[in-house]
Amino acid sequence: MTVPTPQGTLYLVPAPLDFGCATQAPLQDVLPQGTLAVAACLQHWIAENAKSTRAYLKRVYAAHPSAHTLQSLHIQELPRAVHKKGDHPGVAHDFDARPLLAAALGLDGAPQDIGLVSEAGMPAIADPGASVVRAAHALGLRVVPLVGPSSLLLSLSVSGLNGQSFAFVGYLPQDASARNARIRELEALALHTGQSQLLIETPYRNAAVLAALLAVLQPRTRLSVSFGMTLACMASRSASVADWRAQPAALPLDLPAVYCIGL
Amino acid sequence: MTVPTPQGTLYLVPAPLDFGCATQAPLQDVLPQGTLAVAACLQHWIAENAKSTRAYLKRVYAAHPSAHTLQSLHIQELPRAVHKKGDHPGVAHDFDARPLLAAALGLDGAPQDIGLVSEAGMPAIADPGASVVRAAHALGLRVVPLVGPSSLLLSLSVSGLNGQSFAFVGYLPQDASARNARIRELEALALHTGQSQLLIETPYRNAAVLAALLAVLQPRTRLSVSFGMTLACMASRSASVADWRAQPAALPLDLPAVYCIGL
Repeated sequence: MTVPTPQGTLYLVPAPLDFGCATQAPLQDVLPQGTLAVAACLQHWIAENAKSTRAYLKRVYAAHPSAHTLQSLHIQELPRAVHKKGDHPGVAHDFDARPLLAAALGLDGAPQDIGLVSEAGMPAIADPGASVVRAAHALGLRVVPLVGPSSLLLSLSVSGLNGQSFAFVGYLPQDASARNARIRELEALALHTGQSQLLIETPYRNAAVLAALLAVLQPRTRLSVSFGMTLACMASRSASVADWRAQPAALPLDLPAVYCIGL
Repeated sequence: MTVPTPQGTLYLVPAPLDFGCATQAPLQDVLPQGTLAVAACLQHWIAENAKSTRAYLKRVYAAHPSAHTLQSLHIQELPRAVHKKGDHPGVAHDFDARPLLAAALGLDGAPQDIGLVSEAGMPAIADPGASVVRAAHALGLRVVPLVGPSSLLLSLSVSGLNGQSFAFVGYLPQDASARNARIRELEALALHTGQSQLLIETPYRNAAVLAALLAVLQPRTRLSVSFGMTLACMASRSASVADWRAQPAALPLDLPAVYCIGL
């Protein structure tokens, strides 16, 4: 009879959405005790950036007692190629994350649980981390996602657009004519299939993207724009393009935004 | 000079994912204190079902002090047509939810904040509620989504599939040949564009849907199936269709499932 080797669990640990913001709210406002309790217990981490992971865990330890110190943590960073190009299936470099999960296998001592975390929100959603999850499945590890904020889901719920069918399509092309063509393509998809189309943009391109959307979309198409979900400065507007044009909104264009196009 | 009339806020209040389950975990495991604090304060609610909303708020009051009693709550139910057909943009009956928000306008006393809640997860996502959010925007109310669990996002993160581009497409058709054609269509989309395709199914059809997916999808396509996110019985598997066929998984087919098709 073979007794299976005990193995660690990979926890997908969400982070608050205030990364890089001047003011930060208490973690308890956006993370359940259940998530804080697991994050406080984990000594082994895989992260986009070790420094910001320590800053996050310092806040976790202030909210929930931990047996660990920041100095005693083992934090492995995802390689630079993953930062730049992502690690979702189909990208060229096909990063193999299995070596990062060695501590969970217990080959070299007791098996350790490992946390996967990104700068903000859910790891592996609009952020790197999918390669680590795939590697965990390939190694037969248990993978447990924890509850926390997602700017995509919060923005979709606050949009009032179709949440029974929706797509997240990432960023628009930077070239103006390619961007306009892509906006037309997404609008046609939304109008013909009823599927809401979500996209994101970095703060310094917000004004240009909003102007392009209002120039290209049809008047009766609905456009929702959401900024700073969960933050004190949170703002969102959902209206027809005609209404947007008639009453230009004073939205805080210095925050990451989620745009939603639909019926 | 006109002073704007103060108005109430519409809060989008998530519910735990254990609706209808035999055992229920503490709310603090899956809802942040910030969400519980707001839910405990609200006296006015719009819900799919008043009875299950009272059951949920009984748990909230046990986790966070409240000035309200269950008997003092004002709970308005969404009409039956919305339950059956949804209230997302484009559905035939075009339900006008503005009358449900009257208490927020303060026409008849002090303006009241209102909570929108569904049976499980985020309101207005894979659940009714979008009509209420649109009505709030039309009335100029502030709309604030609160953090909580979403089975779609948790299932996507645990799948290891592409989280940089994904779509939620709802349910498959019930007719076998239409269902198989739809599976082929979704697979083609996932393979050609890299966009992960998420779908859901009710427990009693899980075995049939899993069998259809494994019969129709190509061997190298990746299929992830997740059950019971946030519950003690949580289970997920993410593997190629070839691997699924070689090793049929013993998954708990009596829970709602999220299926994800991708590269």
